[in-house]
Amino acid sequence: MRLAIVARVLALVGAVVSLSMGWALLWALADGSSDRWPLLLSLLAGLLLSAVLFFAGRKSSARDLGAREAFAVVTFSWVVASLVGGLPFWISGALPGLTDSFFEAMSGFSTTGASVLTDIESLPRGLLFWRSLTHWLGGMGIIVLSLAVLPFLGVGGMELYRAEVPGPMQEKLTPRVQQTALLLWGVYLLFSGLETVALLFGGLDLFEALTHTFGTMATGGFSTLNGSVGQYGSAYVDGVITLFMFLAGANFVLHYRLLRGNRSAWWEDGEFRFYLGLTILAVMTVTAVLLCKGSYGSVGEALRYASFQVVSIVTTTGFVTADYELWPAYGQVVLFFLMFVGGCGGSTGGGIKNIRIMIVLRQVRLEFHRLLHPQAVIPLRVGGAVLERGVVSAVSAFVVTYLGLFVFFSLVMAALGLDVLTALAAVAATLGNIGPGLGLVGPTDNYAFLPPLAKWVLSFCMLLGRLELFTVLLLLLPGTWRR
Amino acid sequence: MRLAIVARVLALVGAVVSLSMGWALLWALADGSSDRWPLLLSLLAGLLLSAVLFFAGRKSSARDLGAREAFAVVTFSWVVASLVGGLPFWISGALPGLTDSFFEAMSGFSTTGASVLTDIESLPRGLLFWRSLTHWLGGMGIIVLSLAVLPFLGVGGMELYRAEVPGPMQEKLTPRVQQTALLLWGVYLLFSGLETVALLFGGLDLFEALTHTFGTMATGGFSTLNGSVGQYGSAYVDGVITLFMFLAGANFVLHYRLLRGNRSAWWEDGEFRFYLGLTILAVMTVTAVLLCKGSYGSVGEALRYASFQVVSIVTTTGFVTADYELWPAYGQVVLFFLMFVGGCGGSTGGGIKNIRIMIVLRQVRLEFHRLLHPQAVIPLRVGGAVLERGVVSAVSAFVVTYLGLFVFFSLVMAALGLDVLTALAAVAATLGNIGPGLGLVGPTDNYAFLPPLAKWVLSFCMLLGRLELFTVLLLLLPGTWRR
Repeated sequence: MRLAIVARVLALVGAVVSLSMGWALLWALADGSSDRWPLLLSLLAGLLLSAVLFFAGRKSSARDLGAREAFAVVTFSWVVASLVGGLPFWISGALPGLTDSFFEAMSGFSTTGASVLTDIESLPRGLLFWRSLTHWLGGMGIIVLSLAVLPFLGVGGMELYRAEVPGPMQEKLTPRVQQTALLLWGVYLLFSGLETVALLFGGLDLFEALTHTFGTMATGGFSTLNGSVGQYGSAYVDGVITLFMFLAGANFVLHYRLLRGNRSAWWEDGEFRFYLGLTILAVMTVTAVLLCKGSYGSVGEALRYASFQVVSIVTTTGFVTADYELWPAYGQVVLFFLMFVGGCGGSTGGGIKNIRIMIVLRQVRLEFHRLLHPQAVIPLRVGGAVLERGVVSAVSAFVVTYLGLFVFFSLVMAALGLDVLTALAAVAATLGNIGPGLGLVGPTDNYAFLPPLAKWVLSFCMLLGRLELFTVLLLLLPGTWRR
Repeated sequence: MRLAIVARVLALVGAVVSLSMGWALLWALADGSSDRWPLLLSLLAGLLLSAVLFFAGRKSSARDLGAREAFAVVTFSWVVASLVGGLPFWISGALPGLTDSFFEAMSGFSTTGASVLTDIESLPRGLLFWRSLTHWLGGMGIIVLSLAVLPFLGVGGMELYRAEVPGPMQEKLTPRVQQTALLLWGVYLLFSGLETVALLFGGLDLFEALTHTFGTMATGGFSTLNGSVGQYGSAYVDGVITLFMFLAGANFVLHYRLLRGNRSAWWEDGEFRFYLGLTILAVMTVTAVLLCKGSYGSVGEALRYASFQVVSIVTTTGFVTADYELWPAYGQVVLFFLMFVGGCGGSTGGGIKNIRIMIVLRQVRLEFHRLLHPQAVIPLRVGGAVLERGVVSAVSAFVVTYLGLFVFFSLVMAALGLDVLTALAAVAATLGNIGPGLGLVGPTDNYAFLPPLAKWVLSFCMLLGRLELFTVLLLLLPGTWRR
């Protein structure tokens, strides 16, 4: 492991995060509010850290950046960003200490949206803007990561995208990665612009439109209101956010292709069809149960809340318009299992991802076929392409690892004193980068009451889930650190 | 599908089940109790059904019995046994109708132990003996199935045993299957005898010793007491049952080898070491948490209840000595996840099985190794033998199918009105053939309150889990029925 190059790249990450605080500082200055100094101090502290990191890595060369260094860069990028990004909350006194400020910032950068703030609306706008901006920056990071870095590291069976994505095939980060990233960031920026305008039309002011756009496009879920999106009580706002959450949970490469003129880009993609089908199925059945049990008075109302909550959870956003813990159990169980599904590969969503769920289900179908026709040799196909056994094996391993971590951390949370449902849901909601869960961490609750150790454990879950598990786990193997 | 041969084999199953009722009838006659007539009537009805089935299949030949017919025979054996075996409960009025009596009998033959009886002790001894005997007969069925039938059908990756078990390698059921079955039934009978004697020493009368032995050796869990095994309040009885539950959850081939003189038969087996290690780990951590939280006063007491409950759940028995829902959450979460693990291959236990958990975990380890050493070609080994990719793939498919069915039926149960925790636990406890779950189907509750449809769904879950999923699921594919 060549640490110098790692430090040098982290210096860049630290600088980007710090300088981005300038936007929040602008809101604070415009408001003349008390968070000016904490934001400025944090910005300077972040730049100082970046300078130290840059100095430490000054003798490195870009050629030192191999696969192992890339794992370290990716993992520590999110850690450094969360350390620096949490400073404003800590220095301003909005949150009591390092644990809470790191948790909140990690929740932001990992686009989770789990909060330890008990009264969000009491914070000045500068801090709230920064809080939401961490989502948006995290989302940008994920796009470049999932489409331009992870595939070439071969982590977790996302090699599937090697063939599909205009990404790098070489061993080192090349200009082509930058090009891919820029194209997809363009899509991200465009959709963010469209949503902001759409929300402005819905009566939100610029601050609210921007912050909720950040939360949507990054599939994050931080709101500036204590009652989340539901507080607007506007069917229009709900609809706009539902639509953009769904888009943010889909593969950005497809959006790019669509914008380039391929009108059937979405429909041609097997994962998109699966994602759309699953979402529609969940929305329809939840709506039906909500109507049967009389939770809402009209079809329209039931459909509105069901579709918002289903899309919010499956995309791993975590915005809330309805206290789904008051829904019939069916709705809650649907949402609980959707937490594991998550968005599509190449989206800002978390979870296991639709493509992996698809592949393991195809494998099951293949096994049934083999039992009936033992002599037949049938390849596993996804979207017309035959999957290599290595990819299928890696995908299985990813799913098993995901579930194994879910079991392990659920046990840890239960040992730390959480009840059964809360422990399971808290881990599912952080490992899947969703935010709200069930039980004591439900849609109307927050994570503030947890003991400090539990907050660190869940912060780690967010990091693991966000970085496709293996990126982080490989750093825990001694073999990764040997030269 | 050649239905005639299926009917002919089912006639045999029906006759065995019916004639076995004779033992229960003996208790009823000795007691001169009211259940004499229901048992006699059921016995005769069962024989009549067998005669009809035999007549329907009279023109078939044993050579018609191919793999597809074997799937049907196995699945419908359990259905016919449960239909006939449930008659005494229905005719005697102990249970209100077909739904409940079928549920109770399926719970017996599938060695689940979930009950719809609200006051067990109010039943006469003949019926209670029959209820426990269904476990023991089901356990005998499972031994021959898992070691002599399923491996040669190639269902769910248990081909692993092909190499290990003195079982059939040919396409048809051969005398060798009968030989294997007889040897392992000998072990089953021997252990049952030993446990009965040990329980008699503990002060139980012959009736209680036999019924609890049936529940133990089959990893069933039906007790003749409302308070299950805990009602004896005897550390000796708890200890004996803990030991024999653990043995019943291990591979009977290992026991056979041990009895044949191979002293290290247990330890040589990788799955046994995994099963033992997991059990010890769970017992130690649960004991520690119980002591820390002050649930029990002494180390011995905490260890006694923790080991009984952990072994009872991991072996999928379901006997109860402690209301674990009053335990700290950690204990409950451990038990919940152990429900998915289950016993060993070739045991009477249910669940996913230790061997499959081991294989998927090994696969994960292999993937990590591959990421660090992309050029290395490393085979997947279990117990020294290299596993073919086909086996690994079938095991992955089994685990995914198991979890998929868990998700599907949890949604169904929630749609039928159960709360989140009860829905998840009821499906985990029936699919894994355990019995008691969490929530409203916890250790001190029963399944009587469920709506009829829920009882049928859970009966189906027991059947699926007991027959290694694929046996039953393949019958749902149209391709299986085509000639």
